[in-house]
Amino acid sequence: MNNTDKIYNLAVSGVQKLIPYTPGKPIEELERELGLTQIIKLASNENPLGPGKKALAAIQATLKDLALYPDGNGFNLKSALADKYAVDISQITLGNGSNEILELVARAFLTPELEVVFSQHAFAVYPLVTQAVGATAVVAPALNYGHDLDAMQQRITDKTRLVFIANPNNPTGTLLNHAYLELFIKALPDTCICVLDEAYCEFVGDQSAGNSISWLKKYPNLLITRTFSKAYGLAGLRIGYGLSSPQLADILNRVRQPFNNNMLALVAAKAALTDIEHLQNTLAVNAQGMQFITEGFKALGLEWIPSAGNFVLVDLKQSAMPIYEALLRKGVIVRPVGVYELPNHLRITVGTQTENQLFIQALTEVISVL
Amino acid sequence: MNNTDKIYNLAVSGVQKLIPYTPGKPIEELERELGLTQIIKLASNENPLGPGKKALAAIQATLKDLALYPDGNGFNLKSALADKYAVDISQITLGNGSNEILELVARAFLTPELEVVFSQHAFAVYPLVTQAVGATAVVAPALNYGHDLDAMQQRITDKTRLVFIANPNNPTGTLLNHAYLELFIKALPDTCICVLDEAYCEFVGDQSAGNSISWLKKYPNLLITRTFSKAYGLAGLRIGYGLSSPQLADILNRVRQPFNNNMLALVAAKAALTDIEHLQNTLAVNAQGMQFITEGFKALGLEWIPSAGNFVLVDLKQSAMPIYEALLRKGVIVRPVGVYELPNHLRITVGTQTENQLFIQALTEVISVL
Repeated sequence: MNNTDKIYNLAVSGVQKLIPYTPGKPIEELERELGLTQIIKLASNENPLGPGKKALAAIQATLKDLALYPDGNGFNLKSALADKYAVDISQITLGNGSNEILELVARAFLTPELEVVFSQHAFAVYPLVTQAVGATAVVAPALNYGHDLDAMQQRITDKTRLVFIANPNNPTGTLLNHAYLELFIKALPDTCICVLDEAYCEFVGDQSAGNSISWLKKYPNLLITRTFSKAYGLAGLRIGYGLSSPQLADILNRVRQPFNNNMLALVAAKAALTDIEHLQNTLAVNAQGMQFITEGFKALGLEWIPSAGNFVLVDLKQSAMPIYEALLRKGVIVRPVGVYELPNHLRITVGTQTENQLFIQALTEVISVL
Repeated sequence: MNNTDKIYNLAVSGVQKLIPYTPGKPIEELERELGLTQIIKLASNENPLGPGKKALAAIQATLKDLALYPDGNGFNLKSALADKYAVDISQITLGNGSNEILELVARAFLTPELEVVFSQHAFAVYPLVTQAVGATAVVAPALNYGHDLDAMQQRITDKTRLVFIANPNNPTGTLLNHAYLELFIKALPDTCICVLDEAYCEFVGDQSAGNSISWLKKYPNLLITRTFSKAYGLAGLRIGYGLSSPQLADILNRVRQPFNNNMLALVAAKAALTDIEHLQNTLAVNAQGMQFITEGFKALGLEWIPSAGNFVLVDLKQSAMPIYEALLRKGVIVRPVGVYELPNHLRITVGTQTENQLFIQALTEVISVL
């Protein structure tokens, strides 16, 4: 072993075994690889309408201040969130994307002796943040591609410090019954923190999206995470948040970096909260697009998993990778989900009507020559 | 103990004892508190010229893409850094500020059984990242306010996994002899990683600033950290980087979040690297301002610590807090450094000529009525 290889042996054991998350292929990387110029990306559940006007105006007004550090406490954004959700500022943790909140809770509460319960087919970041701190991941089998809360509950022991629930789930789009979910949270031992990941909650059509926040008064071990990367169209800026009891938020805020959120993200997110028109357009485009895409699947004789998010999993009944590759060559980037134990599915983000048409056209061509 | 207080007992032991970093007071917070409108902030070592034109132009060209995720690999910025410093892309880790690189190395390599050596009066983030993972901080006494490398070396044992060196140091501005520093790094056991924090290296007047990068070929356990928050005027965007052996960079890149750097930071930093004019103006304004401020100290009979950075510590020979408070009431924010065991000093960031004049005028008034 040479001198440099020794560095690996110095890393903590969890990190030595860590295999990083694979992001969706960036458009410019595919352009470089395939020499294509017209590419559509329906791979990362991004908002196809782009950022809203109010967010962009807030950014323009702030560019002159970029040499200054951001407000490390995020006072203005926290105040806006507190008003919107009727919580106290002390209940909020701002993160560099909600991904950071998921990471902070793992770092604050996990040790190599402890366990984390989550579902098969759940978001890939849960095993990553568990592995990074060397804790043990306990995976409950899915039920109809969604979370089986009974199976999860059966796996909770006195060693279980965290449980992750994605609702709606990524990548499957499944949505839990709200009353059933509350019973699960209520039954958790008070040594177990429940992370309810609601990155896609704005897309849920019925009134249930807001309900989980009312649970915060009852369950001090509940952490709800949300993001501006999806419905609010600000993925490039990296901004999300956690809502919890003040005590849990205090712990997460101790662990975060002093300036974990950039200045433009803070002002853009605050402005985005007031941009009702952009959010409504986003939800309308998503609902129409979801209908168009799933009708396209139906016409092709393909099955899909009904989704509450801005994406949908299509079942190709065969290895999805050749179809993924064929779509790539036609300039359409979607997401393979083999890493989620779903090798026969592809995840399609709902795009603009033009993008959805191009996708269905490309898929039709690819399927026809199989 | 009630139900919510129990949450604290669930946190890992390092986090339970963590006391967060106190940032400099934001201008708007002081305006709220004191009802002032004309405030100057010389508290956070920010670039008084603001961001450069090239960085701003790059941001403008990218705003339309803000709903997309950033390139998680930061390919374009890494390529520019690799060209500038003649290193390979695989040697670079991008961070949400260099603060994140300091945190990543601690999380990747420290356990509660291990020790970290740094100097008295060194940057406050070193003890924080050490405490967060429950490792033991071993503080070597300073020599003339700077790092005493002999005293640090004497404290290195087979339990020492990290050593942090800030050069120039914040908050003291002291600069180490380069040959002496290399001897220290050379003598480190290969189980110890040396983090050389060069956040202020661009302000160092002589040719020594670039030299440390040539050491990377010799020392696989060396990590150099740098930032765009200081000389490059992009503190609000949060972007910094680490340079190291590819093996060490690989480990840090495994631990970071997939999208730890926001899209605007990536494009602005790349553009800032080419904005030679803005950097030269920044260094000229800093050199002139440093001379003006230290001449002001001399005229007031005050001593200061000669600084290689864009800030200077003045010795008030008495508790600095009343003087800090009196300056605040005059609308001038500077930085108390009691937390650095320097209760009689204040740290002043070099500003524009107008800001420096206002500061010296305010200080003169405050001192005259003591």
